[in-house]
Amino acid sequence: VPGSSTYRIVVALDAVETVRTAYRLVDVLCEKVYGFKLGLPLLLRHGPKVAGRLRSLCPSAAWIADLKLADIGAVMKATVETIIDDVDAVIAHSFVGARGALDELKEYLDARGRKLILVATMSHSGAEEVYDKALDLIDFVIERVQPWGLVAPATRPSLVERLRRKHPNTVILSPGVGAQGAKPGTALCHGADYEIVGRAITSSENPLGSLEEIGATQMEVLRQCRRERH
Amino acid sequence: VPGSSTYRIVVALDAVETVRTAYRLVDVLCEKVYGFKLGLPLLLRHGPKVAGRLRSLCPSAAWIADLKLADIGAVMKATVETIIDDVDAVIAHSFVGARGALDELKEYLDARGRKLILVATMSHSGAEEVYDKALDLIDFVIERVQPWGLVAPATRPSLVERLRRKHPNTVILSPGVGAQGAKPGTALCHGADYEIVGRAITSSENPLGSLEEIGATQMEVLRQCRRERH
Repeated sequence: VPGSSTYRIVVALDAVETVRTAYRLVDVLCEKVYGFKLGLPLLLRHGPKVAGRLRSLCPSAAWIADLKLADIGAVMKATVETIIDDVDAVIAHSFVGARGALDELKEYLDARGRKLILVATMSHSGAEEVYDKALDLIDFVIERVQPWGLVAPATRPSLVERLRRKHPNTVILSPGVGAQGAKPGTALCHGADYEIVGRAITSSENPLGSLEEIGATQMEVLRQCRRERH
Repeated sequence: VPGSSTYRIVVALDAVETVRTAYRLVDVLCEKVYGFKLGLPLLLRHGPKVAGRLRSLCPSAAWIADLKLADIGAVMKATVETIIDDVDAVIAHSFVGARGALDELKEYLDARGRKLILVATMSHSGAEEVYDKALDLIDFVIERVQPWGLVAPATRPSLVERLRRKHPNTVILSPGVGAQGAKPGTALCHGADYEIVGRAITSSENPLGSLEEIGATQMEVLRQCRRERH
């Protein structure tokens, strides 16, 4: 349970160029956020062991490996094996289906006490071309695999609302806040549990100041939006 | 153009545990295959620079980074940047759509003289849950993005045939041969240009012997199948 001083924000370290910048960000933001998300560019450039080193700076946060896994079970497990000791959760795409893929990954993560987060659909406009249109099929995959969490786009809050209704007991994390255009707090109002923020914080001259500004907006928008909806 | 002694086979180095094994495989198989595919587990474990070292052992082969990219454009480009100097082609998922995703990746790869290969659908049974059912939408993505190549499952040859008909000028690579159950040569007969073989060669006691056996079966099945169809 996050303390009273933390925002419902996961910071995406995807676009961070150097490990030194990542260290500095984790150090400064640690007490104020729910967790950190590590992207594939960072993990490829610096090796999966960087996750353990970053985590040791802020063990209280939730650490999420955003590998956007989308392969057969055997390959997803071999990929996760490189990082499983240093993260709490792993993100995979629901699109690849359960049989021979997510079923195997879920079983592997369960046995190791790690969480599975499934992308339900994405935040960019191209997600409307295929992903959004397959959402009825993806609901079946989610129901079968029973992930701990879902990723659903803050940029299209009606989809967050739909997923919240269909999967009431699943944690929802929403990217697309800030640089991609969604207003902080909107996804929370529509049922998300956490908002994922990247460049708006990590590329800021003053990351802690930006986090606090986004966190304040988040709470204000959430209050306003709840008033309007109830 | 492959020489007369090469098979229409791409060897998947996905499940290879050690770099030494990968080196040995590349050295032994180099003259006999069209190319090599490097999976995410290998690249995460040993770093993207391993691609350049492997490539230097067999510069005549096509080198394919199988990152199964499935993210927004900015993240896919940052991921590819770590390996682009050492490979000829990169594999991404069609289901993420063109706008804000594959359009950007294609432009980035074109500017650097690298090829884009899109997964049209996958080889495992879970691909029937969502991917196969979205194939009409995926056709639009492929038509718009105009990739150099497509990945289509040898395990479901009717889909290879459908993709060959819809995208006549695109190279088709088919995984699922060997350990996953498809018979060598079947995908070629249905319109694929290359078959991707992993464990059946890379986990063999005698990789060159297994390659030559699979290559011979491939050619025999192709002849037989063509006779039956014409």
